[in-house]
Amino acid sequence: MGTQAVLNGVDVQQLMATIDAIKANPSLARFTFRATSEWVDGGRSRTVIQGFYGAGQEDTSRKNPFVLEGDEPPVLLGTNAAPNAVEAVLHALASCLAVGFVYNAAAQGIKVESLQFKLEGDLDLHGFLGLSNQTRAGFQNIRLSYRVKTDAPRKKVVELCEYVQKTSPVLDIIRNPVPVTVALEG
Amino acid sequence: MGTQAVLNGVDVQQLMATIDAIKANPSLARFTFRATSEWVDGGRSRTVIQGFYGAGQEDTSRKNPFVLEGDEPPVLLGTNAAPNAVEAVLHALASCLAVGFVYNAAAQGIKVESLQFKLEGDLDLHGFLGLSNQTRAGFQNIRLSYRVKTDAPRKKVVELCEYVQKTSPVLDIIRNPVPVTVALEG
Repeated sequence: MGTQAVLNGVDVQQLMATIDAIKANPSLARFTFRATSEWVDGGRSRTVIQGFYGAGQEDTSRKNPFVLEGDEPPVLLGTNAAPNAVEAVLHALASCLAVGFVYNAAAQGIKVESLQFKLEGDLDLHGFLGLSNQTRAGFQNIRLSYRVKTDAPRKKVVELCEYVQKTSPVLDIIRNPVPVTVALEG
Repeated sequence: MGTQAVLNGVDVQQLMATIDAIKANPSLARFTFRATSEWVDGGRSRTVIQGFYGAGQEDTSRKNPFVLEGDEPPVLLGTNAAPNAVEAVLHALASCLAVGFVYNAAAQGIKVESLQFKLEGDLDLHGFLGLSNQTRAGFQNIRLSYRVKTDAPRKKVVELCEYVQKTSPVLDIIRNPVPVTVALEG
């Protein structure tokens, strides 16, 4: 398992250096991510994401903000301007697992040819509509499948898949409770 | 509390008709949302969202798919092509609360002038990097603030804010555990 300088598009030397830096100074691991969001009309809203705090400083690498839109389909009273909020959760989960899989593969010297995910989440509107106290508002469950193309032995891929599940931030956020503090300003 | 035909961009008659239809036929409330995602390179991936099942049928209202990208900033070994996965979670949460607040306001005859959210989430990389079993991989906590402009009395706004917290799908997904089934194909 030699480490190439760049594998799967990941700078393995930088990855190892990051791990060493955090071992030497654990506070470098503390990140705070941020977003601001504004309602547009109906089911439509717009989120702006740019700066964050991490690795001991405010990040200034993003010259322009990212803008993400949300909306609902007509059957949910929207205009299909963008995916809805729970679909955005599926995107977040796939994006997170891709990073986790590919970075850890690179760290182990595994070349990934391709990686695809399919995701499905079941939701019963009784919760959102306040029609039942027994029905949760969010996804009742999520089904996810991976398809990986790599030369690595199947056993390695299975182990990697399991490791990534233990260390994926978004999978943790979905599978386990996160405290959310809500304040109403003004 | 009269109900206008359209308030806050929400068709209140359609909202009431949807609630009545679900009361008459609870299976109409069952939705399955979907996404497919493909790793691009390094920390970068691309999610495609289009169809879903809901209200008793496959939805065909979206003529074109939505494409969402994910990436990491350079400090996390990416190229800043897009927001990262945990930032996408903050977007999903804001988008969901906007829909919940505005739809329920419309149902109650409350006109919303503007609605904004600020969100922050703390994350310690020790979890993602596998450097600690004690540190969770995901957000340790999320702080969220609302700013609402409306003619409605403050008490009404506070009640609405509390009601939306009980019925928001994404807030539920984040605050409470969702079972996720993972399969490795092929």
